[in-house]
Amino acid sequence: MNLTERTKLRRLPARGSHELESIYGILDAAFLAHVGFCANGQPFVIPTNFGREDDTLFIHGSAASRMLRELSTGVPACVTVTHVDGLVLARSAFHHSMNYRSVVAFGTAKKIEDDERKMHALRVISDHLIRGRWDEVREPNEKEMKQTSVLEFAIEEASAKVRVGGPIDDEEDYALPVWAGVLPLRMQAGEPVGDVRLVKEDLPEYVIQYQRK
Amino acid sequence: MNLTERTKLRRLPARGSHELESIYGILDAAFLAHVGFCANGQPFVIPTNFGREDDTLFIHGSAASRMLRELSTGVPACVTVTHVDGLVLARSAFHHSMNYRSVVAFGTAKKIEDDERKMHALRVISDHLIRGRWDEVREPNEKEMKQTSVLEFAIEEASAKVRVGGPIDDEEDYALPVWAGVLPLRMQAGEPVGDVRLVKEDLPEYVIQYQRK
Repeated sequence: MNLTERTKLRRLPARGSHELESIYGILDAAFLAHVGFCANGQPFVIPTNFGREDDTLFIHGSAASRMLRELSTGVPACVTVTHVDGLVLARSAFHHSMNYRSVVAFGTAKKIEDDERKMHALRVISDHLIRGRWDEVREPNEKEMKQTSVLEFAIEEASAKVRVGGPIDDEEDYALPVWAGVLPLRMQAGEPVGDVRLVKEDLPEYVIQYQRK
Repeated sequence: MNLTERTKLRRLPARGSHELESIYGILDAAFLAHVGFCANGQPFVIPTNFGREDDTLFIHGSAASRMLRELSTGVPACVTVTHVDGLVLARSAFHHSMNYRSVVAFGTAKKIEDDERKMHALRVISDHLIRGRWDEVREPNEKEMKQTSVLEFAIEEASAKVRVGGPIDDEEDYALPVWAGVLPLRMQAGEPVGDVRLVKEDLPEYVIQYQRK
């Protein structure tokens, strides 16, 4: 990965972080990415699951998926991951902000043809979503593998942006009798809902303990 | 809004919904969108806040923002909003899925030059994020307005996709002794953290009650 013009899109270099560790941490805390590509000058932004291994992101879907077909031609792609961590409520409208972590990654994707690597990639995606699940469920059979496309997206450049902390107001606004601070937000798991046809009702530990960073 | 080739990107028409009500409902439940545009064939996907009024989405940022400058030239844009509602855990790896609501909207943006409309748009964005806040805080002054760009994105086409419900397994897999079902996920607010320099400690009702659909 390296840094060139493309990742200099963002305006606030002070918030920028190009450290690999930060980028990987943000990617690994998410399981949903928004993938962008252009087709005849028209941008498409499609939400999708993903998994990461080193600087490779794996995405999968139906073999008939137009997004996967477009991406597998090797067109430039952009994969963006965003976590909202809180609303930053300032005393002035102007200084309102959001605490967040995001990664914008550029690169190109190609289809995985090798069956063993394809199965490995599916496992990485599954582990990324909910670790422990893959070992319990029935693995994809030959027919299902044929119906599934898996791409590997090589991250060529990436940048992370992070905002943390409370509001920063103009000095004269601190006298205003307005509540200000941070309202933390996070994605939380609710009560698991078992399928009606369960032959085994016990909840796996990885479901009970499920949480994202 | 109408439906043309662009929104036929997605593969599962059975999950498609082009009803306006559904599209507006999904947009209004979110405050974060991923905006896509192409510059010299390179796609960019940038997370941003937004507000909605009819079929117009307002987005704002620094007057120096490259994204806003690019978009305001009227290039084709794509605005995507995604809610993850739960993990769908099936008995086979292949039938794992996610419950979600998403909207992919296509259109073009332009800069709002009229000051009154610009202020109105900022209020719509604020109300969309946290209703009640705008009335309490100091409004943007002239200098702040100059530092802020606001765009209106006219939705020309949009499609919604929604998945709800439990896993659907292959008949023979129902005998497997694997827990299956849905793990609901939602964004939840935590305990508000007041700024250290508050002159008024009382939490507003709209902060205490804050929740997204």
